[in-house]
Amino acid sequence: MKAVVWKGPEQVSVEEVPVPEIVEPYDALVRVTLSAICGSDLHVYHQMIPGIEEGVILGHEFVGIVEEVGSRTNVIRPGDRVVSSFFSCCATCWYCKKGWYSQCENRMIFGMGEFYGDLPGAQAEKVRVPNADATLVKVPENLSDEQAIFVGDIMATGMFAAERGEINVGDTVAVVGCGPVGIMATMCASLFGPARIIAVDMVEERLELAKRLGAIPVDSNKQHPAQTVLELTGGRGADVVLECVGNHKAVELAIDCVRPAGTISAVGVNDVIEYPFPIAAAWLKDLSFRTGICNVPKYMTQLLTLIKAGKLDPTIIISHRMQLEQAEEAYRMFANRQATKIVLYP
Amino acid sequence: MKAVVWKGPEQVSVEEVPVPEIVEPYDALVRVTLSAICGSDLHVYHQMIPGIEEGVILGHEFVGIVEEVGSRTNVIRPGDRVVSSFFSCCATCWYCKKGWYSQCENRMIFGMGEFYGDLPGAQAEKVRVPNADATLVKVPENLSDEQAIFVGDIMATGMFAAERGEINVGDTVAVVGCGPVGIMATMCASLFGPARIIAVDMVEERLELAKRLGAIPVDSNKQHPAQTVLELTGGRGADVVLECVGNHKAVELAIDCVRPAGTISAVGVNDVIEYPFPIAAAWLKDLSFRTGICNVPKYMTQLLTLIKAGKLDPTIIISHRMQLEQAEEAYRMFANRQATKIVLYP
Amino acid sequence: MKAVVWKGPEQVSVEEVPVPEIVEPYDALVRVTLSAICGSDLHVYHQMIPGIEEGVILGHEFVGIVEEVGSRTNVIRPGDRVVSSFFSCCATCWYCKKGWYSQCENRMIFGMGEFYGDLPGAQAEKVRVPNADATLVKVPENLSDEQAIFVGDIMATGMFAAERGEINVGDTVAVVGCGPVGIMATMCASLFGPARIIAVDMVEERLELAKRLGAIPVDSNKQHPAQTVLELTGGRGADVVLECVGNHKAVELAIDCVRPAGTISAVGVNDVIEYPFPIAAAWLKDLSFRTGICNVPKYMTQLLTLIKAGKLDPTIIISHRMQLEQAEEAYRMFANRQATKIVLYP
Amino acid sequence: MKAVVWKGPEQVSVEEVPVPEIVEPYDALVRVTLSAICGSDLHVYHQMIPGIEEGVILGHEFVGIVEEVGSRTNVIRPGDRVVSSFFSCCATCWYCKKGWYSQCENRMIFGMGEFYGDLPGAQAEKVRVPNADATLVKVPENLSDEQAIFVGDIMATGMFAAERGEINVGDTVAVVGCGPVGIMATMCASLFGPARIIAVDMVEERLELAKRLGAIPVDSNKQHPAQTVLELTGGRGADVVLECVGNHKAVELAIDCVRPAGTISAVGVNDVIEYPFPIAAAWLKDLSFRTGICNVPKYMTQLLTLIKAGKLDPTIIISHRMQLEQAEEAYRMFANRQATKIVLYP
Repeated sequence: MKAVVWKGPEQVSVEEVPVPEIVEPYDALVRVTLSAICGSDLHVYHQMIPGIEEGVILGHEFVGIVEEVGSRTNVIRPGDRVVSSFFSCCATCWYCKKGWYSQCENRMIFGMGEFYGDLPGAQAEKVRVPNADATLVKVPENLSDEQAIFVGDIMATGMFAAERGEINVGDTVAVVGCGPVGIMATMCASLFGPARIIAVDMVEERLELAKRLGAIPVDSNKQHPAQTVLELTGGRGADVVLECVGNHKAVELAIDCVRPAGTISAVGVNDVIEYPFPIAAAWLKDLSFRTGICNVPKYMTQLLTLIKAGKLDPTIIISHRMQLEQAEEAYRMFANRQATKIVLYP
Repeated sequence: MKAVVWKGPEQVSVEEVPVPEIVEPYDALVRVTLSAICGSDLHVYHQMIPGIEEGVILGHEFVGIVEEVGSRTNVIRPGDRVVSSFFSCCATCWYCKKGWYSQCENRMIFGMGEFYGDLPGAQAEKVRVPNADATLVKVPENLSDEQAIFVGDIMATGMFAAERGEINVGDTVAVVGCGPVGIMATMCASLFGPARIIAVDMVEERLELAKRLGAIPVDSNKQHPAQTVLELTGGRGADVVLECVGNHKAVELAIDCVRPAGTISAVGVNDVIEYPFPIAAAWLKDLSFRTGICNVPKYMTQLLTLIKAGKLDPTIIISHRMQLEQAEEAYRMFANRQATKIVLYP
Repeated sequence: MKAVVWKGPEQVSVEEVPVPEIVEPYDALVRVTLSAICGSDLHVYHQMIPGIEEGVILGHEFVGIVEEVGSRTNVIRPGDRVVSSFFSCCATCWYCKKGWYSQCENRMIFGMGEFYGDLPGAQAEKVRVPNADATLVKVPENLSDEQAIFVGDIMATGMFAAERGEINVGDTVAVVGCGPVGIMATMCASLFGPARIIAVDMVEERLELAKRLGAIPVDSNKQHPAQTVLELTGGRGADVVLECVGNHKAVELAIDCVRPAGTISAVGVNDVIEYPFPIAAAWLKDLSFRTGICNVPKYMTQLLTLIKAGKLDPTIIISHRMQLEQAEEAYRMFANRQATKIVLYP
Repeated sequence: MKAVVWKGPEQVSVEEVPVPEIVEPYDALVRVTLSAICGSDLHVYHQMIPGIEEGVILGHEFVGIVEEVGSRTNVIRPGDRVVSSFFSCCATCWYCKKGWYSQCENRMIFGMGEFYGDLPGAQAEKVRVPNADATLVKVPENLSDEQAIFVGDIMATGMFAAERGEINVGDTVAVVGCGPVGIMATMCASLFGPARIIAVDMVEERLELAKRLGAIPVDSNKQHPAQTVLELTGGRGADVVLECVGNHKAVELAIDCVRPAGTISAVGVNDVIEYPFPIAAAWLKDLSFRTGICNVPKYMTQLLTLIKAGKLDPTIIISHRMQLEQAEEAYRMFANRQATKIVLYP
């Protein structure tokens, strides 16, 4: 079958690879009907992930049809149309029982190499899904693949960011960074009843998207973002800041934007082990700072319900629809910020 | 000055009464620029309130301009444009300090007679407001009287109902009763991100309003409401029910509509001391049942912020704009359900 | 094997019955090493449960050793020493996934007859446990059977009552009824940091137990309980009341005892379908009223951890240790309130 | 009158200074009956506070008798025995109304120099207290000065740390640093029902105190603290870590000790503007990190209630009782860690 394979820094190619098979009794084998390229795929692309090796099949956002299941799966059955979490989880370890699936002791991330569990990715015709009952969710009948795919990663991450921000009805929320995750965070934050959302970025297309969602766009190339947030809030700052970039300047901006006793919920993926943290300011301001890798399975059913009810439309993020065979070009475009979000049809 | 005075069951008249004066050092004297007739005014109208006596000045929903303040008010100043809570509260007792202003040990409700503190009402040219700093909130400049007035009673009650319902993002909410409070509850519930709201009533105009707000209308004259809620939720029931009627049939309907482990938030004002409660069903279903008189001051600023931001529009409830002099006719129309909500201009 | 069988109102006998077998692939077969008689067994004893029939094997509190498991259990293995929830649950339905196991769509209660799922009880030498992975929890090595047994019912119910009471650190908690569940509620409530717990009953031994746990005992034969609670709280009332009796007088007492804006958490099992509820008082007081059948599996591991850490000692409730063969006498004693809690050794 | 005055780095002296007077109408003048030396006084002592100048009167922990009040105080009256928050707050700004008194727009800290509001301290015979109604709390009759004094600073800080740690019943809590605040955090954390508390320090006396409170002491000179916490928790880590030291090594230790998806509540006062923060670890672990200056007035009444009920005993922290005149020696001892906590009698 065809699959997108990492060949080295900034090099991917679509190659013929062996079709995966059921290995464990809780596995499912899924025929992929739609996959997508995620910002974190670029971490592999640029070799910023520890221990990545040539030959890794990329991709962790996908929808598909179950073709085969192992002997002990209960919920997921052949023929089911499913969307997957970007990682597999076991449902039975201490963390899974607590509902913290992202900390599953048996977690494996699709297509991120050995450090993350050595699980082949889903930018391919077929993919093996471990612990299928806990990792996959059935897609409601009247939702398209494009409507469903993002609940397994960026949309769940947006909801995770918003939920951990502890937004109260009537709050002012600032979103730092309006890439795909930031746009999803903006969309999900609006479900918590804020009086307004201020969206900070410097890419015009992204700010345009944020504006379509009802946010107040702030172009950080043209306006000083923290100052603008302060002006818009009578000098107080945003009640909640959702940090969706992933570097310490973004966190500093978040701390500058947030009001005393506010919360920063940071989901941006950083490329560094540590960074300087303005502890004196954080202490004086009584801040809560939360960060983390998204606890996807907690949100998938909830998000599908909201999409079905017409309260969320994740498809607005899709800027390009391409073929799996065009993956090389797609990665190049995405790495060069020529596309907001690319989905790949097999 | 002119004021609406209760003369006996189903009898009100607009009469000349003495202008009120500052009595306590924390008082304010407010010139009323808009008042409204509330469902609970009808409890006085029909003499269903304990200890009501002829001569009571009615009315507890109002906006106005502060004319004079007592010697010890700090926040409220002459000239301020203000909206009032339907009751006054002291801000210093144990309950006020805890933020439970509705349980203030010094609470007085405007225009409800002796049982509720013997405080003259606001369907008048002027009204004395005790503990003005805690009872009044300044109206933001660009809001009209009609936009602001309901944060002091029915809109706060809608928010109180919704907040105590513990709605989660993605939930199904059922609102039982779409009178003014039910409509406000529907509007406020939508701020908590439900996937859908099901609104039950039997008055067409009310269901029409609920529909305008995005709710699914259920006419209980035409459809069995509990059955409809169950059908719409795949047999499970609503996650949260907001009971906005105030009798035990409505509570029974709420219990029939709510799913196991759900919450009923009841704000309807009952006319009875006790009623039969289906405890076996409640126990088997693991229910939470909350009821109460709205804790208005907790919500006033929050609601004004949301109205200003365009997230809420309470004016849609206003069906009739009349003059204070027309109060007799206005009460008759409202009592006969010929009006959804009437505001009175002086 | 021997088992305790219901023969009719107030009649049980220990009889020879067939040994149960594995039926479903998720079953476990457990050799019972300790069982107990629960207050709800008396509902069967007195034929107050709908649809109970002669021949039902009683009992739902037990500890034992797994002898055999079905083909698809994953966690529970032969040889495991386990304590059971008083009901079985599936772990995969909508409610189980939400963590509301007591509302499991496939719930069966041990030994309560057809209405509750027709599952034979555990006052026997062996018992079949459906959905063993979700229903059973392994007992930590250094805990005795007597230390572990109550986490499957009365102790979990005490925790459920306390948790849903929303106790804040520093609160005054009143416990209405100090039977086994009330004593457990007192013990668990103390984990939430109340300044004091007031325990109301009229049986001296029970009040003595409550006092040993640090509660202030109030004998309702000698003191007016609501008045005493008011006196002890400066006229305000208890912040939280845990109702552990199960009749409308107890609920009325709870409403009289609780302060405005407080919470009543009711876990007493009522014998009636409905009862009069003082809605006017509840509304004026802004109350939250919660009731329900305990969501046991949520608390089992937590409770075992606390027992192991020495923070809870459920064994103080045991007044009598008897043999399974003595069940007839044991039921008679328990029904006549001659025993606080009886455990049965096989 | 006599007062403790800062003369330069590591220099204080007891000097004659003018008696303070009522300045604002909300002031109270308090005759100090007990004061204490706080760890943050050492920040002044060592000139680690911005803008500190010779002549500042030190001290912010105190109990006393109100001698005189301004014309507009309502609650506090002459003759009242009171304990003070370490800062004054206005009760009427946006933050105070939200209950975030530590972020009061008019906050002044006693005895910390110009940067913190230029308010003379309380290690003196008398002290002026601005906004007395919101800053002071009356001491219940049967509590001694020594029992009451710490609710205005270190004990409230311990509660603030514990509360923001979001401890669940049954959790394992680690306290990093067992100085006065750490000991108070240990004491307060125990109110939230943890299965155990692990207390890390390297001073024997402090570990001894922690042990008396039921904590498991870990001497970081003798054991690797993170490793010990992991061993004690089966490799998982503490659910909650309370960081009570105030430097980045302590925070790193906290991050090493905490389990994935856990919470770090940091109240230690840092001497640096920024420090390196291990963001990659925090992100992978889904951490919540909270820091801040204690919101004292929120906790004062609650703590006094718990002390009165015998649930908390703050006096165990007092190692030395000295006279105000001995302040010079007292500061030297405290700076040299020869005393755990010193109180000063006038």
